[in-house]
Order: sequence, then structure tokens, then C-alpha cells
Amino acid sequence: MEKQEMLALLEQVQQGALTPEQALLQMKLQPFQDLGYAKVDHHRGLRQGAQEVIYGAGKTAEQIDGILTAMESRDATDIIVTRMNQQSADYVAQRHPMDYDPMSRLGIVHPTGKITAPGYIAVVSGGTSDMAVCEEAARTAIAMGNKVERLYDVGVAGLHRLLSKLDVLMQARVVIAVAGMEGALASVVGGLVDCPVIAVPTSVGYGANFNGLSALLSMLNSCASGVSVVNIDNGFGAGYLASMINHMGGSDQ
Amino acid sequence: MEKQEMLALLEQVQQGALTPEQALLQMKLQPFQDLGYAKVDHHRGLRQGAQEVIYGAGKTAEQIDGILTAMESRDATDIIVTRMNQQSADYVAQRHPMDYDPMSRLGIVHPTGKITAPGYIAVVSGGTSDMAVCEEAARTAIAMGNKVERLYDVGVAGLHRLLSKLDVLMQARVVIAVAGMEGALASVVGGLVDCPVIAVPTSVGYGANFNGLSALLSMLNSCASGVSVVNIDNGFGAGYLASMINHMGGSDQ
Amino acid sequence: MEKQEMLALLEQVQQGALTPEQALLQMKLQPFQDLGYAKVDHHRGLRQGAQEVIYGAGKTAEQIDGILTAMESRDATDIIVTRMNQQSADYVAQRHPMDYDPMSRLGIVHPTGKITAPGYIAVVSGGTSDMAVCEEAARTAIAMGNKVERLYDVGVAGLHRLLSKLDVLMQARVVIAVAGMEGALASVVGGLVDCPVIAVPTSVGYGANFNGLSALLSMLNSCASGVSVVNIDNGFGAGYLASMINHMGGSDQ
Amino acid sequence: MEKQEMLALLEQVQQGALTPEQALLQMKLQPFQDLGYAKVDHHRGLRQGAQEVIYGAGKTAEQIDGILTAMESRDATDIIVTRMNQQSADYVAQRHPMDYDPMSRLGIVHPTGKITAPGYIAVVSGGTSDMAVCEEAARTAIAMGNKVERLYDVGVAGLHRLLSKLDVLMQARVVIAVAGMEGALASVVGGLVDCPVIAVPTSVGYGANFNGLSALLSMLNSCASGVSVVNIDNGFGAGYLASMINHMGGSDQ
Amino acid sequence: MEKQEMLALLEQVQQGALTPEQALLQMKLQPFQDLGYAKVDHHRGLRQGAQEVIYGAGKTAEQIDGILTAMESRDATDIIVTRMNQQSADYVAQRHPMDYDPMSRLGIVHPTGKITAPGYIAVVSGGTSDMAVCEEAARTAIAMGNKVERLYDVGVAGLHRLLSKLDVLMQARVVIAVAGMEGALASVVGGLVDCPVIAVPTSVGYGANFNGLSALLSMLNSCASGVSVVNIDNGFGAGYLASMINHMGGSDQ
Amino acid sequence: MEKQEMLALLEQVQQGALTPEQALLQMKLQPFQDLGYAKVDHHRGLRQGAQEVIYGAGKTAEQIDGILTAMESRDATDIIVTRMNQQSADYVAQRHPMDYDPMSRLGIVHPTGKITAPGYIAVVSGGTSDMAVCEEAARTAIAMGNKVERLYDVGVAGLHRLLSKLDVLMQARVVIAVAGMEGALASVVGGLVDCPVIAVPTSVGYGANFNGLSALLSMLNSCASGVSVVNIDNGFGAGYLASMINHMGGSDQ
Amino acid sequence: MEKQEMLALLEQVQQGALTPEQALLQMKLQPFQDLGYAKVDHHRGLRQGAQEVIYGAGKTAEQIDGILTAMESRDATDIIVTRMNQQSADYVAQRHPMDYDPMSRLGIVHPTGKITAPGYIAVVSGGTSDMAVCEEAARTAIAMGNKVERLYDVGVAGLHRLLSKLDVLMQARVVIAVAGMEGALASVVGGLVDCPVIAVPTSVGYGANFNGLSALLSMLNSCASGVSVVNIDNGFGAGYLASMINHMGGSDQ
Amino acid sequence: MEKQEMLALLEQVQQGALTPEQALLQMKLQPFQDLGYAKVDHHRGLRQGAQEVIYGAGKTAEQIDGILTAMESRDATDIIVTRMNQQSADYVAQRHPMDYDPMSRLGIVHPTGKITAPGYIAVVSGGTSDMAVCEEAARTAIAMGNKVERLYDVGVAGLHRLLSKLDVLMQARVVIAVAGMEGALASVVGGLVDCPVIAVPTSVGYGANFNGLSALLSMLNSCASGVSVVNIDNGFGAGYLASMINHMGGSDQ
Repeated sequence: MEKQEMLALLEQVQQGALTPEQALLQMKLQPFQDLGYAKVDHHRGLRQGAQEVIYGAGKTAEQIDGILTAMESRDATDIIVTRMNQQSADYVAQRHPMDYDPMSRLGIVHPTGKITAPGYIAVVSGGTSDMAVCEEAARTAIAMGNKVERLYDVGVAGLHRLLSKLDVLMQARVVIAVAGMEGALASVVGGLVDCPVIAVPTSVGYGANFNGLSALLSMLNSCASGVSVVNIDNGFGAGYLASMINHMGGSDQ
Repeated sequence: MEKQEMLALLEQVQQGALTPEQALLQMKLQPFQDLGYAKVDHHRGLRQGAQEVIYGAGKTAEQIDGILTAMESRDATDIIVTRMNQQSADYVAQRHPMDYDPMSRLGIVHPTGKITAPGYIAVVSGGTSDMAVCEEAARTAIAMGNKVERLYDVGVAGLHRLLSKLDVLMQARVVIAVAGMEGALASVVGGLVDCPVIAVPTSVGYGANFNGLSALLSMLNSCASGVSVVNIDNGFGAGYLASMINHMGGSDQ
Repeated sequence: MEKQEMLALLEQVQQGALTPEQALLQMKLQPFQDLGYAKVDHHRGLRQGAQEVIYGAGKTAEQIDGILTAMESRDATDIIVTRMNQQSADYVAQRHPMDYDPMSRLGIVHPTGKITAPGYIAVVSGGTSDMAVCEEAARTAIAMGNKVERLYDVGVAGLHRLLSKLDVLMQARVVIAVAGMEGALASVVGGLVDCPVIAVPTSVGYGANFNGLSALLSMLNSCASGVSVVNIDNGFGAGYLASMINHMGGSDQ
Repeated sequence: MEKQEMLALLEQVQQGALTPEQALLQMKLQPFQDLGYAKVDHHRGLRQGAQEVIYGAGKTAEQIDGILTAMESRDATDIIVTRMNQQSADYVAQRHPMDYDPMSRLGIVHPTGKITAPGYIAVVSGGTSDMAVCEEAARTAIAMGNKVERLYDVGVAGLHRLLSKLDVLMQARVVIAVAGMEGALASVVGGLVDCPVIAVPTSVGYGANFNGLSALLSMLNSCASGVSVVNIDNGFGAGYLASMINHMGGSDQ
Repeated sequence: MEKQEMLALLEQVQQGALTPEQALLQMKLQPFQDLGYAKVDHHRGLRQGAQEVIYGAGKTAEQIDGILTAMESRDATDIIVTRMNQQSADYVAQRHPMDYDPMSRLGIVHPTGKITAPGYIAVVSGGTSDMAVCEEAARTAIAMGNKVERLYDVGVAGLHRLLSKLDVLMQARVVIAVAGMEGALASVVGGLVDCPVIAVPTSVGYGANFNGLSALLSMLNSCASGVSVVNIDNGFGAGYLASMINHMGGSDQ
Repeated sequence: MEKQEMLALLEQVQQGALTPEQALLQMKLQPFQDLGYAKVDHHRGLRQGAQEVIYGAGKTAEQIDGILTAMESRDATDIIVTRMNQQSADYVAQRHPMDYDPMSRLGIVHPTGKITAPGYIAVVSGGTSDMAVCEEAARTAIAMGNKVERLYDVGVAGLHRLLSKLDVLMQARVVIAVAGMEGALASVVGGLVDCPVIAVPTSVGYGANFNGLSALLSMLNSCASGVSVVNIDNGFGAGYLASMINHMGGSDQ
Repeated sequence: MEKQEMLALLEQVQQGALTPEQALLQMKLQPFQDLGYAKVDHHRGLRQGAQEVIYGAGKTAEQIDGILTAMESRDATDIIVTRMNQQSADYVAQRHPMDYDPMSRLGIVHPTGKITAPGYIAVVSGGTSDMAVCEEAARTAIAMGNKVERLYDVGVAGLHRLLSKLDVLMQARVVIAVAGMEGALASVVGGLVDCPVIAVPTSVGYGANFNGLSALLSMLNSCASGVSVVNIDNGFGAGYLASMINHMGGSDQ
Repeated sequence: MEKQEMLALLEQVQQGALTPEQALLQMKLQPFQDLGYAKVDHHRGLRQGAQEVIYGAGKTAEQIDGILTAMESRDATDIIVTRMNQQSADYVAQRHPMDYDPMSRLGIVHPTGKITAPGYIAVVSGGTSDMAVCEEAARTAIAMGNKVERLYDVGVAGLHRLLSKLDVLMQARVVIAVAGMEGALASVVGGLVDCPVIAVPTSVGYGANFNGLSALLSMLNSCASGVSVVNIDNGFGAGYLASMINHMGGSDQ
């Protein structure tokens, strides 16, 4: 494909339609489109429904508003804004339609609620203290066009709670397992389901949790196959990856 | 589905075809089929082509042979044996048809070469020292019915080598990025492709690599979305998960 | 036992008292009672006197009040609420009879002071800075029906203080050793007594204590037999386990 | 008790049966009996059945033989020798009746098989690679007069195997949970039983296990109450502590 | 010596001056004086001039005042109060004569300025940011009767500053080397002097200092003989040990 | 050179122009000039244009002002003040001409803008969150007489942004690569350019970044030759070293 | 420059000297020459004298020989082979002229001894145990056309040895400081010289050196400006970077 | 003192007894004697009896022999050779009178057994596995002219053993406490004695000892005043420092 464009350009030079200098300039302006790179980005947006993400941390309300306004001009929907504090959210909400969740500090601007992937993603967690990370994962997935099932009180120390949700768990296409105090949840879930499990260690906890290091190591050592791990507290990353997997091989319509 | 069986069993009791004791016995013999559990396992096998794995580490050649013989009676094919040393491999190869790779110490018994998933998995690595882990990943994926493309000399310190393979990389359905000395590869690859990237840190390296810890941390901190990490040196786990994802949502025919 | 219930259910089906569908529903509703699981929980409550625990951290005063009200309807007594701040405690205390300790932030609701286990648990600590964790352990044990002896100023750097309490120490049925700056206490106590010693590392301290890691490692490396360790600052866990052990094999009457 | 002896001694001085110098000598010869210390040791031996332990690591076969011969003169039975290599075991076995296990390298000299505690201790492990540590724990407990149930293939990644042994697990008086690759086992078991659980992290494993550190941290962060942890690979310590707890509050006869 | 007392006691029993019960009580009241223990404590106080230390951290101004008042009744002088905040210091200063230093938060109550040891202790540091720890060390040593020389701007990165103070450094009887960003100072000083060097790592610094860990490790690895290390930020401990060494083998008069 | 001075001094003694005592005094006054040491310092200042640095952290506004006033009397220009807070900066700015940057908290007093080195230094970073460290590096280099090119939004996860600046990057004489979340940037840049790359890990980030440790380790393990690392967040050190290298072997005029 | 070539190519197309297809092929064959990339490589080789490096670790003698033969056909000289064992060296030495050093396991094939950079690089180390890393650094620098001065017995614990070599040290253009047991050397040297210092931590040492981690952290925390750090034991990297810096801004003739 | 020499030299120049060039040469030959440095070294040797140390690790038998022969020509006695293997020891013993200990691998050449310090040093350890480090410390101290008392089986887990040696312990002038599995020993000993305690963590142990890290941290956190720590396994350093302290303030005659 990119060869085609290159060839076209060269032919225009051959035919005198472009001077060599003009061709060179054009090549320099798009160095990586030449390599088929930027195209992919467009393709990504088309296919996944919600492609736009603004990392809110360290941005002012005004900056976020500015980026959103620019995006709106391109008719973007389901724009995710992560780690946005309440104050910024208030400012933004007055200017753009937004679904904001204070716990996870994640906002979805111009939310459509459109589902573009088959099946659902299950977000599983052992307690209530990991909820902010869970919601970041869940809402990211929702904004990206996925149906999400939340199973939030199913820790392995009370196995019956987890097992009583086995139906929901086993029909998921992807599972996100969020845990702070112990990574056991990822192992157990990984052994119960036969779909990919994305484990998210959280920094919640006390004692020898060491800001999530314990959960991280425990999850990495999971004996169950099909389990992989994202960074500590990275709910967004888990939701994004889960959506990517859930969109593989099909769409709902 | 499992409800159907339960119901059938109960109806047989109702109709007098089974005594309650007989029904109970049958339930006890399959305690987790009752929960829909074991079925999944069968389903998994049917769908993925190669479901059987023998963890060779710590097993004698005789033990491996014994398990294989049992499996053969069930017509199993593409049976993976991991971490099997040369001596055991020689013993096994005299008794079963096997494709054995000394570097990754992985054997595939009764290999069929059948491809059951659409697209291919790319296994990417920056140098030649991580090859054993790469091959464990690649051969696991192959045994499970996937086409695999190997890109083994494409480290980020010589970016042109990686970029010259952009075509192959960008058309993969899943990428496995294996790296020991630095996790940079996972970030860079994650930024180039729009499919899931499974990062495998390896313990290869010297200096401040600390048996793979550096690569692990670097990969976890990857800024690219769509990247998740498995345990250090866990080529098998990466191959298994990649196959799981690659089989999602479709088949070749 | 659970077989009995299953059998009874099946016999009811055989006899036409239940349709297969009704039996199936009942089985699905109690998946783990079938396995004898939930029963144990009841048994636990009956035997140990104080079975109810509310983890106060991250719960609002209103949430705690709500759970307590529900428990009161079941005549629960000696309900432990952990990590509850003063503000929540004030709110709760106006609505329920409660013994609250501001240092350990532990409250006992509907305290009965009943002793249900033989002998006593000794809580030992080297200084006064670990007192909050000590009290969490002590009060947990008390709420669960144990007599507790506190030995709080008996650090190993002034061995005579510890040895002067040898009588009390050596007659305990379980010892909880709490230490922040050094784990030496657990080793020394473990060598002096012949009952189980539960060591609790604390995050108190400065310098190379690294939030309790030093104490934790030191306690794990204790040469004395009979010593085991719980998580850093986990006074509740130590008190709970100590009570469990102290209730073994007998009661006071 | 020790006061009694002191008093008797003093009365003999008062009555002129002993000179002050004789009394002083006697006190100096038994400096810690005066503190009630050594007595405890005797009491321990009487009560627990098997009190003798020889740490074999770093001792020659001749040294072990020497200590055993001395012990035999005091009619000791069920003498535990830990970490003894095969060569030493062969030497010792020619001179003393011994039950030696090559895997755990633990020998029991003059084994009696006597059971002195009520109930049994369950030793649980997720795979076969932790077996050496399991056996060290199990055989220590046996030598100390406990009945032991072994559940060795019940890892949490295949939860049905563990749950199918629920009967055995739930009737244990103490559970020893041994795991290398992940500490999940301790959490799950701790949530299933209502007796003390002693967790033993093992150094077995690869990748980010870091010689048992991952399992250790995971076990410490266990959310289940009633779980405590001993040092990495310390099967002996777990067996010793389990026996101590199992002997509490009763005997079989 | 302690034998003498024991003998005296026994002789009093022999002579009927004490009943056996009275003798036993006396023995129980002073269990470790019997072992010569407490005497040492007295001896320590007599010899070192300033023996009294109050750890101020976690104590209220009232508690500190209370202890001081009790000590005053025994004519204690040069009483050290460590880690006392300004507010407590103000309260205490109104009630007792005190020399208080806000930077190190160390107060000396009833300061006498008496020098009881030969020679002087040099406190060396590379910059000004470690001054609080330096002063804690210096003032502890002063309160305990030592002359102190402060060399505070002599970091190894500007070696000439250190070398220009070589005279002062080389005549010290003990050197305390305080450093946060690098432990190099301890090595260099250790190579220049032939007296004991006590190294104090500090938590001051940024980047990869990791709260003093870097300085600690660097100091431990010092190639210079005669160097030992105390805990991070432990100025008091260094001053105390330096005084102990400086008082060895002589006094000024 | 220094030998010359020594010799001159000695000859003056020989000739009676100086008494031995006078010569000794002169030697003592300049102990390190004798070793050729202090000379270097002068040389350094002359050659590099901006030699003066005040470490602002822990200094009061008055102290900084005092040092600056002293320096002004020696006609110092381009004096760098690091880590100075806004309040101090306001105070200083009223008394001295200063270019102050609130983000990096670095001030340049008596800025001349003089360029004394050939070529330019490129400061590269992957995002905007590392900007404070970037600016500390950039402004340090500027104050020391270097031209600086800033490339601040060129993270490896979006490789096209970096590659589109290849021209600027490849013509730099030194590159400073600043990164928090991953060290990949240093590796990739190191592979693209053939000049020295100074990597600065930053403590910015979340999850398993562990205050910059991940970035530090990743940068150290960089496979690209020509890369070295300074301390976490040490923008000043990187700028200083880059200037040192950039000034090697030539000047602009 | 690269634009020139592109332009030339385009002009040839314009003039009909090349068809578009031929031009495209040429561009595809050199995808990164288009980006100015590969040129740099050539330039590097021309300028630095010895550009060729073969990483010997993990390569067989035959593989090394094969690469060397290929390089010889391009008249390469001063080819560096790193981490080559004696056996491989013997094999290679029979086929190519080589200067091999068994300690550092580094060979220089077709050594010319040509000096292409002004001044010299000083390699400094505190003892003899770090010699292998020192020699790897020194010989790498020599092969790349640098004069090298070795100062190998100048540890900071015996400062006089270092200071007696001050002349040599202070006239170096780059210093490589190699140290295992403590990083102090880098700080001290950094404070003495005004040229870039490249610090190489080594894994040599015992106790709390933790395979070079202590030296690494100490070096990173160096207070001296102008110091940067490469990976543990990375003598090659230090020599390479030092040569790069030493070649800046001039040549000998 | 050094001024005297300088003055003398200058006077010789003044008087024509030396030319300026001769004086300069003499100054250059002894650059640090001028600073009073080397003198100290001589003084050290005179005062401490045994000043000579050869670090045997990494030296060949021939090299050690060579150094010894050179030393003998200066009539050196009590020369310490550390970490010398048996083979080297055999070689050396044939050529020099030597007292060699295979366990600690420390030899004393030309041993005199002379005691030059008052009192004795106690070397204390908890078990027999740390004996090599203990003996390195003890023999170093002996070679340097100290009387040494060994207390090797006095671990804190059996406190009575330690307390029964209280007499010996409390009369020591310095105590060296060696421990691997736990640092408790240092704390307990530090609380019992009033002399300096030098703690030596050892790498002996298993489980969570992490090559001595646990013991190191535990010892650093010791609450007892008067305790400082040397590097892991550094018996020599402890013995050297203990001797230094023991020689303070007096001699035997």
C-alpha cells in the first residue's frame, strides 16, 4: 500500500507533475505514513468505536476543555478522560456532556452507550477497597463499546461467594481480576475460566503489601495459564486491553 | 447445558430409572461437572486443537512416557511437554512421534501441524540470547494450532531492524515481545501495533538486570496501551495466552 | 452429612414430592451448603462466642451503623469493628453499646466480657510505640472470649524486664509478640515458652526499619521453634489466631 | 514449683542440714532451674512424646551418631534428625533403628508411631515440586505424635481438586499449607477451614518467585483470618508448631 | 561479688536473722541483681557522667516533665531528651534548666558541661543538609562528658576541604562520619585516621538514595578498616557509642 | 607548573629573600595549590563561562541573597541557583537580575545568554510530566553557555513523534534523555544517535515505578552503546555533564 | 546530506535515468539511509577508527570466525570481540591476527594501535579485584583509537595512593572509575578532576555488595558533578562512551 | 611535627646544605608525609603490635609468599593473611612459620602470641554454623595483640546458655556478636553489657535470610545502645575494629 503511494509520487516526478523538490518535501512531511504507520491509527479509531483518550493527570481543567473542544470538531464520541479531579470535572461538565465517576475519577465525554463487541467483560474483585481501580477498568471498557459485568465481593478467602457467581464468570470473553491484598484471586479465577484473564494488582492494603508489590508478584507467579498482568493500579490499561481482546474476531451486528 | 444433564438425571430418578443412591453416586463421581466446570475443559480441547500439556520439569522420562501412553489411548495429538531435558527427550522419542527442540526443551508429541486460528502470532525479540524463551512461546503456540512469525533480531537499540519488519508486525493478531536486557521492546512494539502485546521478561543479561527484574519492571511501566506481562522466562504462558486470544472470534474456514 | 441432604432431596424426587425442576432449583440456590461449607460457618459462631467482625477501614459511620443494626436483629454480641476512626466511633456509640479504644481504633459492640477459653493469651511488646497494634490484638482476643495478660515494657535490650515477667509468660497458652524496631523479641520469647508464639511485626520505627520489613524478616528467621508470623501491623489477625488456638481442646466450665 | 525447691533449700540451711556454701553451690549449678526454666523443658518432653531434635545440616555422620548414642542412654525415642544427607543416613541406619526419607532428608530414630494428640494435621500443597518441604513438615509432625493427612495435588489453579478433598480438610485440627509459585493456596484454604493454618512458602519455582519471596509476601497478605507464616522452606518449623497446637487441650486416651 | 550477697543472705538464714520465706522474697525481688546485672547499670552511671536518656518521640510534654521531675529528685544531671518537638521543649524549659537545640530536637537538662573523657570526638559531615543528625550525635556526646569537634563542610567531592582539616581529624579519638547522599565520606575518613569511625547514614537526599539505603550500603561496603555503621539517622546511637569508646582506658584528671 | 612555584619559593629561601618560616607559612596558606589543585578550579571557571552553582534546597532566601552578593563582588555571571522555591525566588529577584523558572525551580542570576560551546544539546522526553526535570537540565546547560534544543513530546510508545524529529536529534552533540515511566526512551535514542546520551530517570509515574527505580534499572540495562545514567530526577547533574562534554575540543569563536 | 541523495535520486527519475520502480527499489533496499540513519554509521566508522564490535558471549568460535572473515573482506581493523572464552580465542587466533587478553576476555582483531583522539582516557580502580572490568574498558578504548592511562591501585581508603597520581588524573580528558566494594572512588575522583567521569560499578565483593547494587547506588548518589554511571560490570560500555567523548572536538594531527 | 620537618628542610636550603631542586625532590617523594599522613601509619604499627595484613583472596600462593618475604626483611611479625585457601596455605607454610586455620582460612605468619591490650574481646555467636566468621574475627584480634574469649553456643532462642556466660560477657572490653539467622543476638547482648558491641551479620542460613540481609537489618535496628554493625561476613573487619577499641587508653605493662 505505502509502496503504491511512493510509486505514485515517483511517477508524478517522472511525468513532470512534481518537481523533485516538491516530492522530497512531501516525503519529509509524512515520513511514517510512508511506512504505513499513521494509517493504522485511523483504522484503529474506525474499528474500536472509542479511540480517544485524554490523560487527565497533570492537566488543568482548561487544557482538558481545549482538547475536548478540538475533538468535538471531529465529531468524536465516548472520549475517555482519566484521573480527572472533581474540580476539573465540574468545569468540564458545564461545557460538554459527560458521564463522570468521582471514585475512579474517569469521565466519558459524549457518551453513546454503544456496544460494538460480542459478549461481555467481567470485572472481578475481592473486596470493596479496590473499587476505584475496578471502576476505572469497567468504565474504560464501557466507553470503548463493551458490555461489562461487575463481580465485586468475591474474594478467595470466602470462596463460596466467588463460586456462586461461576455462571457469570465462565461466560465472560475476558476477565479483569483486580486485587490489592493478595494476588490469589487471579490464580483462582484463571483456573476457573478458559478465557484471557488480565490481572491488576492494586496499591491498596497495609502491612507487607508494599504498595502493590506483593499482589504484583503473586499475580505474576500465578500457576493458572491464560493470566497476564498490567501495572499496579492501572485500571485503564486493563480495560483498554480487555476491550481490544473482546473486539477480536467479530462484532455484534 | 449442565443444567440439562442434572435435569436428565433427576428425571431418571423421578421415573424410577435410577435409584436416588445411583444418582448420588454419579453426582459424586463428577462433582464439578455439576457446576459446569469440567465441561469447559472438554469444550476447550475441542476448540483449541491442542489442549494437553505435561510440565516436564521434575518428571522422569518414565513418568512422562507413562502419561503420554495414557493420553495416546484417548487419541490426543499435539501434546506439549515443557522443560524436558535432552536425555528424557531421547527416551520419549524412541516411544512416541515427537518434534523436540533442544534450545527451548519443548517437545510436541503426535504433532499434526494443524492450524485452527485465523491470522498469526508474531514472536519478537531483540537479540539471540532470549531465543530459548522465544522458542518456548512460538512452539507452544504452534502446537495449539496457530501460525507463528518469528522476528528475532529486532532490538530497539537498532530501530531500523524493527521498523524494516513493520509489515509483518502490524498484521499480527497477537504479538509476544520477549526481552531480557531491557523492556523497551514491549513499549516500542506496543506503540506500533494495535493488537494485544504479551511481554515476556527474561532472566538473561548481566549487571543490573537482577534475574529479569529490570525487564519486568520496565515492561510493567510501558506507556503503550494494550501491553500486559507474564512471569519472567514464561514462554509457555505467553504462547498459551496468545493462542487463547488468537482463537477468539473466528476460525480459518 | 451433605450426602444425607442430597439423598433426601433425591428421595423426594423419587417419591414425587418434588419435581426434578424444583430439586434442581434448590441445588442451584445452595451450591456450597451441598458441600458442607456454610454449616461450618455456623458451627464457628457457636463455638467461639464472638464471631462477628466489621472491617471499619473505608466504611462510613452510617454503613457501620447499618451492619450493626442488622446484626443486632440476630442477637449478635461482642461484635468487633476494626480500624474505626474517632468520628465514626462517636456516631456509632450514640446508637449501640460499645467499648471503643481510640489508640487501636477498635470497638466491641454489645460487649459481654464472657470468657469461653481456658488459660490466657499474653500480649508482649518491647516498648510503648507498638501499643496500638498490641491493643488491637488484645481487644480482638478479649472480644472473642479470651483472658489476656499484657506485658508491654519488656524489650530484649533490657532483658531483666522480660525475665522478671517470666512467670506470667510461661503460663500463657498462646503468646503474641509485637515488635517494630527489631524482631528479637519473638526469638527470645519463643525460646522461653513452650506454647505457640504469634509474632506481629510493626511498621513503627525509623531508619532501616523500612516500614516493618526488618522486623518481619527478623521474626521469620527466628531460630526458636513454635514461632509463626502474621502481616505487618496485623494485630487483629494475631488476636484472632491466638483465640482460635486458645479455644482448642477445652473450655472453662 | 521452683519456689518450692528454693524454699526447701533455704529451709535446709535454716535447719543446718546444709551450710550456706553448699546451698550456694547447688544454686550455681542449676542457675536456670532457679528461674523455673529448665523444668519447662522436661515438662515439654513428657507431654509431647517426641522432644528430641538434631539439626543435621553441617554435622558429620559421626557427630550425629554420637549425639544419638548419648540420647539412647536416656531411652529417647522418636528422635528427629533434620537435613541429613543420604551418606550420613546410611551410616546412622547401620547403628540405630531409623525411618529415613531421602526426599525431605529427615530421619526418625527409634520410631514408635505413637499418636499422642487428638485429631489430625492436614498437609496441603498445590503440586509435586514442594513435596520435600511437605514431607519434612509431615514427618516432623508424625515423630511428635500426630496423625497426618497428606493432600498433595490440590492447587488453586484447579480448584475442583481442592474442593473434592473438602471433607478431609475441614475436619483437620491444624492445616499446613505449602506453596512455592503462589501463596494463593494459604488464602483459599484459610477461607475454607476454621482451624489454624500454618503457611510455608517454598523457594521452588522460577521467574519472579525470587527464592520464595513472592510466596512469602502473598501468604502474609492473605485476607483469610487464622493464617500465619513460617520461614521459607521451613517444613520442620511448621510441623513442630502444628504439633504444638494439635496437642493443646487434650490427648487421645 | 554477687556470690557475696547470696552468701550473706544464706548466712542470715542460717543464723535465723531471716526466715527462708523472707530470703526467697528478697531473691525474687531482685532476680538479676543476683546475677550481677543491675550493678553494672549503677557502675555505668557513675563512670560515664551522663547516663540518663529520655526518648522524647511519642511522649507528651507532661510525660517528659514527669520523668524529669523524678530524675531531679535523684540529682541527675546532663539528662538527654531526644526527638522533642519545639512545643514540648518550651513547656519543659519553663520548668527545668535546659539546653535545647531545635534542629536536632535534642535537649540537655541540667547541663553541666563537665568533660570526663580524654581527647575529643570529631563529627564529620559532607554538607549542611545532614546537620540535624550531626547535632544529635554531637550533643549526645557532649552531654555524656566528651569534648566534640565539628567538621561540617568537608565532603569528599571537594577533597581539599577535608584534607585541610586533617590535623583536627587525625588527632580525634573517635570519628563520627555522617552522610546522606553517599557513604564515600566514611571510607575516605576511615582511610585517613587510625581511630574507630562510626558511620551514620542519613535519609536526607533525593533520587536513588531510597531513604538512606544507598548511604547505608555504601558505608557497609567501606574498604577502610575500623569503620562500623549504626542505623539510618541514628545520631544519638552514634554519639552514645562514641562516648563509650572515648571513655575507655582513662579519664582526664 | 606547581613545581615551578615551589621551586621559586625554595630559591627565594636559598637566596635569603624569604626566611624558612615565611616560606612555610606561604605553603600552609595554599596547601592544595601546592598540589596543583586549586588552579584547576580557576581554569574551570575561565573555560566554561558559568561556573557558579548555589544549591538552593535547605537554604533561606537570605542565605542565597548573601552568597549572591558575595559572588557579585567578583563579577560572577550566569550563577545557577537550584531547587529554589517561589518565595525565595521573589525575594532574590528584588535584589538581583534573575531569570527564574517556577517549574524546575531553577534561577539564573545575571544571565548573559552567552554561548561558549559548539553545537547544541538536545533534551528529549516522552511526555509532559517529566518537564520539571527536563527544564532543570536545559536551563543548567543554557546557563553554562550551551545552545539547547527541547524535544518534549516524543515518547517511544508513539515512535513516529520521535522519528519525525530525527534531524534535530541526530545533529546534537550530546543528548539528555529524561523519562519516568519507562527507560525505553534512552535505549531507543541511544540507538539512533552517535553522540553521548545522558539518561535521567525521574520519579514521576505510578504503579510499579517505585519512585524512579524502574526507569533507572531500565536505563542501566540499555543495550545501546554511548548511554550513561545520572541519579533519579537529577536534571542539574545531567545538564552540567552535558555542558562539560559539549565544551570539549572547541569553542564557537 | 541525505536530502541530497534523495534529491539526486528524484532528479534521476525526473530525467528518465531511473524508472520510478528502480528508484523505489533503491529506497526499499536502504530504508533508513533515507532517514539519514545508516550514513551516520559510516561516518562513525570513519571518524573513530575502530567501529566494529562482536559480542562474543553466546557465540561459538565458528560463528565468531565467520563474522570476522566477512569483516576482513571489507578491510575492517581493530575489530573488538567481547566476552570470548580462552577456547574460542585459541580457535580465532589461529585464523586471524588478534591481541587477546584472558582476564577481560576481550580480543582485538587486526590491531593497528592507531591513536585517533587527542589526550588520553584514565582508567582508575581501587584494587586488583576489579581488573577484568578495568581491562575491558581500557582495551575497548585502545581499540577505538584512544591513548589510555591505567591507575589501578588507588582506592579511597588509602587516599595518598590516589593523590600521588593526581598529575596523571587531572590531565585526562575522560576518567573511567571502576569500583566494586564502594562507589566512593567515583565521588572522590569526580571532585578532583574537571572532565567527565564514567563510573562502572562491579559485581566483585562480598557481604552487602549484593552483586554490585551497593556500588551502583553509591555511584548514582555521588555528589560530584560530571559523574554518570553505566551498567554493573559494563567495562565495554564505559570504554565505548569514553572514546566517544574523547573523540569530540578534535583529532591529534 | 610535620611542620618541624618542613622547617628543617627549608633551613637546610637556607644554609646551602640542600639545593632547592634537592629539597623539591624530597618533598615530591613524600607528598603526604608532608601532611603528617604517613607518620600515623608508623605510629599505628608501633602501637598495635600487628599491623600487617595481606588480603589473600585473589592472590596466588606465589604472590603471597613474595609479599611475606618482603615483609620478613623488615622483621614484621603477626602478619595476617585473610581468605587464603588450603592449597596456598600449604605452599606458604613450607616457607614461613604460620598458624593457619582452615575454617576461617586465616593465617598468622610469624605468630608471637604477644598480648598488647588490657582486658579481652568476647566473640559471641548463637550456633556453630557461623564459626568461620567467628574465627576470622577472633584470630584477627589475637594476631593484633588481644586476648579473646569465645562464647559460641549462646543463641537467644535458648537464653539460659547466654545468661550462664554472663560473667565472661560482662567483663569484656569489647564484644563481637556474630549471627546469621537473626540479629537478635546483638540486641540482647547490647542490653546486657556496657561496652561497645560490634555486630557481624553472616550470610549463613536459609529461607528469608537473603544472604545476610535479614540479620543485617535486624542488627541495625537493634534498640540497644552501643551497638554498631560491620559488613556481612566481615569477621576480619570486626576483629580489627575490636582490637582498635581494646587498645584505647592503655597497655598491659
